[in-house]
Amino acid sequence: MKCGIFHTPYNPPSRTPREVFDWSLRIAVVADEAGFSDFMIGEHSTLAWENIPCPEIVIGAAAQLTKRIRFAPMAHLLPYHHPATLAIQVGWLSQVLEGRYFLGVAPGGHHTDAILHGFSGIGELQAQMFESLELMEKVWARAPFREKGKHFQAGFPGKDDMPGYDVIIADNSPHGGRQNLEIAVTGLTENSSSLKWAGERNYSPISFFGGTRVMKSHWDTWSAAAKSKGFETDRARFRVTRDIFIADSDAEAKRLALRSGLAKSWEQYLIPIYKKFNLFQGIIEDSGTGIDPSQVDMNFLAEHVWLCGSPATVIRKLERMAEKTGGWGEIVVNSHDSIDDPKPWEESLQRLAREVAPKVNVL
Amino acid sequence: MKCGIFHTPYNPPSRTPREVFDWSLRIAVVADEAGFSDFMIGEHSTLAWENIPCPEIVIGAAAQLTKRIRFAPMAHLLPYHHPATLAIQVGWLSQVLEGRYFLGVAPGGHHTDAILHGFSGIGELQAQMFESLELMEKVWARAPFREKGKHFQAGFPGKDDMPGYDVIIADNSPHGGRQNLEIAVTGLTENSSSLKWAGERNYSPISFFGGTRVMKSHWDTWSAAAKSKGFETDRARFRVTRDIFIADSDAEAKRLALRSGLAKSWEQYLIPIYKKFNLFQGIIEDSGTGIDPSQVDMNFLAEHVWLCGSPATVIRKLERMAEKTGGWGEIVVNSHDSIDDPKPWEESLQRLAREVAPKVNVL
Repeated sequence: MKCGIFHTPYNPPSRTPREVFDWSLRIAVVADEAGFSDFMIGEHSTLAWENIPCPEIVIGAAAQLTKRIRFAPMAHLLPYHHPATLAIQVGWLSQVLEGRYFLGVAPGGHHTDAILHGFSGIGELQAQMFESLELMEKVWARAPFREKGKHFQAGFPGKDDMPGYDVIIADNSPHGGRQNLEIAVTGLTENSSSLKWAGERNYSPISFFGGTRVMKSHWDTWSAAAKSKGFETDRARFRVTRDIFIADSDAEAKRLALRSGLAKSWEQYLIPIYKKFNLFQGIIEDSGTGIDPSQVDMNFLAEHVWLCGSPATVIRKLERMAEKTGGWGEIVVNSHDSIDDPKPWEESLQRLAREVAPKVNVL
Repeated sequence: MKCGIFHTPYNPPSRTPREVFDWSLRIAVVADEAGFSDFMIGEHSTLAWENIPCPEIVIGAAAQLTKRIRFAPMAHLLPYHHPATLAIQVGWLSQVLEGRYFLGVAPGGHHTDAILHGFSGIGELQAQMFESLELMEKVWARAPFREKGKHFQAGFPGKDDMPGYDVIIADNSPHGGRQNLEIAVTGLTENSSSLKWAGERNYSPISFFGGTRVMKSHWDTWSAAAKSKGFETDRARFRVTRDIFIADSDAEAKRLALRSGLAKSWEQYLIPIYKKFNLFQGIIEDSGTGIDPSQVDMNFLAEHVWLCGSPATVIRKLERMAEKTGGWGEIVVNSHDSIDDPKPWEESLQRLAREVAPKVNVL
């Protein structure tokens, strides 16, 4: 089992951009040294609790600090960028990272981000994402074209466009060629239309956790779509996100988790969101407790939402989830703000990569 | 006199993005430690000789490596970005740099970059720059608005735009408030319309070198425009670019310069551009040689274009230029590719900051 980090990030609004930036790089270094495979960073313009608007800047800053871990914006929100500018940025940055780069794409799901960019809501975004990605592919192909779409315009210069002196056009296409650029898409709900779209295009699937049924649905939707277009479907490509906290014993893990940034994110930020968007439903089903979402408390989270415990306990919980869902290739840990007391959180990450991942059987 | 670096960058097309990235950070560290005030980085999408498409990524990567030096994209090409995305990026990055940031803006002057972004040429760009900057200012102001302009759309969410749970809107406006964000504009030709526009808005002027007459014109154009709108005009704000190479003696400086990246850039890249756009005219006038531009050779460059020599010689040359033009606050050194033999170039930068700048009188 490979390990990844999903750095949304979850940091309280009291943190400055510099604090979040430094914390991001610190986690990247810890994860790289511990043997994590991937580090994914969200993109949000307006959300004080998830405030990295420019994942590419954090990724670039990590280039010299890390050796093996791969980075991805997860995801660039395509309607909010000029597609030619973004295509060149992705290609150039993947070359700066010498291939330790993959690309997440999404339409944008937050109302306030959409308004910032002049939209009346998120309903208009998906069509723009599709058009943007088509133009990005053409820029990466480096053949002369000019196209004015419904929403965007782009082109690529040819010999006839040279202004009279000898211009050598930079090759800012993806490192190793477009065929070496992995594109990934996240799914949140059952029967995710994003994952269907991803499967049809051979983009990798990432499942945000919402219980066994949702996770199964994510794989089923993606793999059916991929098969319908003749692509191979290998579960090793399936990434699933979880909150994880590991310590010497189950009691110690729970005690440390409850005083960590993980607990603060849920208490102050995530519980209201999960209630509003009805995201606890699948998790409550799995728990067999039959409680009402309004009854979700920190104890419920530690028992049923977080994979919390000793290495042996976390191995057991992961294997049980794999039996129910069919398994995955990479477990992706959500990051939370442990700036004030980083050691227990960092040790938890190290133990996942060194004590859990090599022993667990989830495929 | 303050010192700055202008990192266009000039690196041969054979360099990889990673080599240019590492070189950029190395110069930033050397300049920071030597006492340089500013490090400016160009933005070009298609030019293999000037291949940093994302100056903001280099700037972010330098945040933890440097202590005092300020950074600027010089310039972000506004028609090639979504104005809301760029406004948030600028504000957030200025906070990551804790204020060691200023902003260059330009419409874009390269035909191949314009084509990449779907334009038929550079003539359409200036109007888009104006509209973009107006929308960026509104995003920074953080008051609710929604606007669809002729070219762009943007907005800012208000209380009524909250999606049912309590969203705290991130403050990604410039560090210390908009009033603390310096905006700067470069001028290339006599009677520069860019510098007139900059003066009328109290943006700082930067003069690309084209001889005494052009430099005087840059100041005159900018200061007349600034005065016309009631702004104070202080020559300490005037930045002028030059190629500079300093060593123990004049002969040694010339010998080292002629085998450095500075000479290679001119020989392989800049001479054809200067000839095509008639940029040697003012320099030849200053030289008193009366040669034809076709006769410009490396010896002419070393004598009349580069400020090349011992510290005492470079002080004398700078003071003579200041007498003729009225002076400036910051000399900005163009960077060139000395990756294969960095020491003479780095020592030249250090001597400019430590042996020339403290003694020279240019104001």
